[in-house]
Amino acid sequence: MTFTDMLSAAQRTNNSLLCVGLDPDTSKLPTHLQSTPDAVFEFCAAIVDATADLACSFKPQIAYFSAIGAEPTLERLMAYMHQRAPHVPVILDAKRGDIGSTAQQYAREAFERYGAHAVTLSPFMGRDSVEPYLAYADKGVFLLCRTSNPGGSDLQNQRLADQPGQPKLFEHLAQLAHSEWNSNGQVGLVVGATFPQEIARVRSLAPSLPLLIPGVGAQGGDAAATVKAGATANGMAVINSSRAILYASSGVDFAQAARAAAIATRDVLNQARVAA
Amino acid sequence: MTFTDMLSAAQRTNNSLLCVGLDPDTSKLPTHLQSTPDAVFEFCAAIVDATADLACSFKPQIAYFSAIGAEPTLERLMAYMHQRAPHVPVILDAKRGDIGSTAQQYAREAFERYGAHAVTLSPFMGRDSVEPYLAYADKGVFLLCRTSNPGGSDLQNQRLADQPGQPKLFEHLAQLAHSEWNSNGQVGLVVGATFPQEIARVRSLAPSLPLLIPGVGAQGGDAAATVKAGATANGMAVINSSRAILYASSGVDFAQAARAAAIATRDVLNQARVAA
Repeated sequence: MTFTDMLSAAQRTNNSLLCVGLDPDTSKLPTHLQSTPDAVFEFCAAIVDATADLACSFKPQIAYFSAIGAEPTLERLMAYMHQRAPHVPVILDAKRGDIGSTAQQYAREAFERYGAHAVTLSPFMGRDSVEPYLAYADKGVFLLCRTSNPGGSDLQNQRLADQPGQPKLFEHLAQLAHSEWNSNGQVGLVVGATFPQEIARVRSLAPSLPLLIPGVGAQGGDAAATVKAGATANGMAVINSSRAILYASSGVDFAQAARAAAIATRDVLNQARVAA
Repeated sequence: MTFTDMLSAAQRTNNSLLCVGLDPDTSKLPTHLQSTPDAVFEFCAAIVDATADLACSFKPQIAYFSAIGAEPTLERLMAYMHQRAPHVPVILDAKRGDIGSTAQQYAREAFERYGAHAVTLSPFMGRDSVEPYLAYADKGVFLLCRTSNPGGSDLQNQRLADQPGQPKLFEHLAQLAHSEWNSNGQVGLVVGATFPQEIARVRSLAPSLPLLIPGVGAQGGDAAATVKAGATANGMAVINSSRAILYASSGVDFAQAARAAAIATRDVLNQARVAA
């Protein structure tokens, strides 16, 4: 089964566009867990248990594990997700970007060591920085395309002088990814949720690519516009929420509160999908 | 002491522009080491011992450790380098690129966990993806600018329509890094060695920024042109060689052969510096 097929099946099975981001900031863990020796694993596993029937994917952010030397914890968490929710694909958020034998090592890390179904990548070094990951035929990659942080405009929003129609860099990248780099149907794009018109633009340039969209909270403020712009019959949207779910409560009810927040977000996204 | 001062002092002390890259590919280790349990550490430590008086910096590539779950080995190696060659700065080649609290976690990984003196970063997400690293005042960052792999042209070589003179993306980035992002004197650039005229262009746009230049082997073919283009009185060039040194011999004499290759490369670079 390809990554795209797996993702699509999980969206149908759980009736959800929601990706649950796992960013376990040790300073934000529930108070009663902070003194336990295996706090990061216990916290993440409880979130997985509470949302396994609500999410179309999980997205652990590797930096939160690497900063504290907790790679073995991430290994155990990956195995736990595969066992607890085998139908829910796991996107390792690592934003790697290198070439040749180094990229092969990073692909080995993501796909062999951690068993991720997909990985996020930076496209700055171009096509041959992506190819070593595509050699794993059943795996996917999500390329950074348009990020909605203030500095996202520094390079991504620059218009290109020599391309037809002078597209912005992120538009050119969406075109490249769709028409040239995605030869095996394994490529998706990361597009921030802050500007729905930019999601719509990427969607028009890459009609069939899965879009991973961070930046939507439980509030549902722009969730409707995000879904309308990004999710189509041909192209999936995977909409990530991390902190609004993980830290919905800092009490002993954190998992229950996370489940409630995930249900609320899933429902807002589904209502937007019906309306679109 | 700032990172730039430390790098400059190491270049003077060891009379060298050579950075020794530590990319321990387990399939390429000397035959007699391959069956030992601590082969990666033993190999890298022997290379450090053999080149500590020849290098102006060491550059471990983290992917080679992460792929095999050898982060504890990298921790020990970093400590070994600090102890064995405290005057030689260590650049952790990680090419991280993320924002906000995630970037803070990656900075913590590089600078606190591993004790690196500098780290390589991807600039794709813009200025606020760099700032969390600059919060460590005595540390440095090297931003990918122009890479000489085939795909390096896909984005980096695009000319920008709305910038004065329509610079290429990598030229615009060099300008940004020099004039806006380098407020604390901590920023350098990564520029591949394949096209010396592009090194010269980056040098003219960023006269005082340290340039980290991979892609020069022991042959010295374009080493002279690389040094001439990149090293000036105001701006340092740090010229990396990895495989030509690491794998100069696969026999029991590997460290001796690595030393000979490092001496040859250092001398070629120094001769070019004198000639320039």
